[in-house]
Amino acid sequence: MGDTIKILGIAGSIREGSYNRFALRAAGELLPDGAELEIFDISDIPMFNQDDVDEMPPIVVEMKRKVTEADALLFSTPEYNYSVPGVLKNVIDWGSRPYGDNSWDGKPTAIMGASTGILGTARAQYHLRQVFVALNMYVLNRPEVMIAKAAERFDEEGNLVDEQTKEFVKSLMTALVKWTRKMS
Amino acid sequence: MGDTIKILGIAGSIREGSYNRFALRAAGELLPDGAELEIFDISDIPMFNQDDVDEMPPIVVEMKRKVTEADALLFSTPEYNYSVPGVLKNVIDWGSRPYGDNSWDGKPTAIMGASTGILGTARAQYHLRQVFVALNMYVLNRPEVMIAKAAERFDEEGNLVDEQTKEFVKSLMTALVKWTRKMS
Amino acid sequence: MGDTIKILGIAGSIREGSYNRFALRAAGELLPDGAELEIFDISDIPMFNQDDVDEMPPIVVEMKRKVTEADALLFSTPEYNYSVPGVLKNVIDWGSRPYGDNSWDGKPTAIMGASTGILGTARAQYHLRQVFVALNMYVLNRPEVMIAKAAERFDEEGNLVDEQTKEFVKSLMTALVKWTRKMS
Amino acid sequence: MGDTIKILGIAGSIREGSYNRFALRAAGELLPDGAELEIFDISDIPMFNQDDVDEMPPIVVEMKRKVTEADALLFSTPEYNYSVPGVLKNVIDWGSRPYGDNSWDGKPTAIMGASTGILGTARAQYHLRQVFVALNMYVLNRPEVMIAKAAERFDEEGNLVDEQTKEFVKSLMTALVKWTRKMS
Repeated sequence: MGDTIKILGIAGSIREGSYNRFALRAAGELLPDGAELEIFDISDIPMFNQDDVDEMPPIVVEMKRKVTEADALLFSTPEYNYSVPGVLKNVIDWGSRPYGDNSWDGKPTAIMGASTGILGTARAQYHLRQVFVALNMYVLNRPEVMIAKAAERFDEEGNLVDEQTKEFVKSLMTALVKWTRKMS
Repeated sequence: MGDTIKILGIAGSIREGSYNRFALRAAGELLPDGAELEIFDISDIPMFNQDDVDEMPPIVVEMKRKVTEADALLFSTPEYNYSVPGVLKNVIDWGSRPYGDNSWDGKPTAIMGASTGILGTARAQYHLRQVFVALNMYVLNRPEVMIAKAAERFDEEGNLVDEQTKEFVKSLMTALVKWTRKMS
Repeated sequence: MGDTIKILGIAGSIREGSYNRFALRAAGELLPDGAELEIFDISDIPMFNQDDVDEMPPIVVEMKRKVTEADALLFSTPEYNYSVPGVLKNVIDWGSRPYGDNSWDGKPTAIMGASTGILGTARAQYHLRQVFVALNMYVLNRPEVMIAKAAERFDEEGNLVDEQTKEFVKSLMTALVKWTRKMS
Repeated sequence: MGDTIKILGIAGSIREGSYNRFALRAAGELLPDGAELEIFDISDIPMFNQDDVDEMPPIVVEMKRKVTEADALLFSTPEYNYSVPGVLKNVIDWGSRPYGDNSWDGKPTAIMGASTGILGTARAQYHLRQVFVALNMYVLNRPEVMIAKAAERFDEEGNLVDEQTKEFVKSLMTALVKWTRKMS
């Protein structure tokens, strides 16, 4: 780990106007000193197939390299049907393979989520936490950032404009950087 | 619902030699009278993207039609990283859209799973059950079919050869048909 | 099952002014025709000890008898530390014993919950649903009644005064009675 | 934190011959240098009642003091009805109160469990992990010690005699001590 903490951000939705993409972008603007955020776009990751593990698609190889090189991870995910979106879980599944090369292993990690509903992705986040036990990731307990009623908190250009939410995201970033230094 | 109960089977893995594909095939041979099982192959379902919901890919449209026409559903899933495989969750996410056209709604449903490990997909099945609450599916409580150490229970052609497991799968199929008639 | 559906209500908190006790009371006033609700007070149920199963405390014997005689069950629970309160889980554990005498087996069941927080007991309810799979209970999927910000919805005498919440509770009771008739 | 890491052990069952009590005893004999284990017996902890929080029962006050003084925590729990035993959850609920005095806050923590069944308390452990997020505890990811078929692994005096299980427990204790030093 160098002087600057490198955080890799992954959004759990691939639609263009995803609030979770926007939330990651906001996070990148709310970092403490000594940290930087790169967002990895998962749109082109194909469906996981165990038969393809020996010769992984180049985009998956690149994703795994990015994860390995990162000092910390930040996931921002919507909730689909009371759980993690299939598209996000699929990326996680790829990253955990082949056996013996779990790219997620040991990474300091933060979770946040944005949704238009009231529960703010809570159910997705708890399922994700169980997945991260499997992968031996070090996940922050707090703050739990669940951005409910997202349509009210971002403007039409996707800028996070709700001050309270900005404070939450900022405190998550600060906690992640501190946690990453502690874990190193 | 006609005289014959039509069950649609979906496997949670797309690799060729998946034990869960094999388990579905076995289930089709262990049905009680008055039921038939069709297996739907999810290999060609693309990643879910909310931006594509208004014009769904033809394979997704077909999948949704198959689900709608079925009297009951049977899922057989591996466990990836302590949860539902992304590829399966992705199919479920597609089927739940667009809002107001949840294809899974009200379907009598059974879950089973096969894995080479000891826990036999337990963690994936409980996450799946929470997803099915979201979708208002009527899921059987019992029997819970968790096929551990799958490599010992199927032969090289993918035939289920373990007698005890065959009994479990058969009792699940019998319970599903009975449950479906009750729910109709 | 007689002409009248007998529902047994159990609150997950034993404090005097519990919103969940109040919610049960409200439910009793929002029943459809042909149903009645009796509330069982769990305050005097001792801690579960497997060593006492052969000679259960009289209050536990009575509780198990009430459950057995009921046509349906209604739980109203707070959320403690992201899960089911120990006091409620303890009652459930007693009712499931001894092996072979699971009083909860096969009961049509509805869940609701009231809390002063925002998530409205969601996390407790999903844990409870997993417990109810173990016990082979038939739990309603919908409506999911999660009464958030309870302090604003009950008056000082514990009367449910929020009209929207009353409608939710009423629809839950109607669904439970319908579900119970279907399951019989 | 002094030179010696003080671990407080809590069993999730209060029956006399509990395998989880035995497992804690075994853990105490498998500690690395520089650590000691004290077992706290929860048998006399009464049911949690919010009305009693202002004047907590003396046994609860003592329990909270023990937890506060400990450098690390070790839970060994059975699984009741696919979740955490009510008796254990009840103790956890007490320890989290009153608001602002969460005794569990920030504690390095390890989980293990023993059961006579096959899944070895897996479902209880994942529910417990969600509870520990609420309480801001730092829980080890690995090793996950799930002692299945416990009756075969302990002798009649409650000694852990299965060598492989002893290795698992020993590695958990070693990991907990290392984790506790890192967290300090």
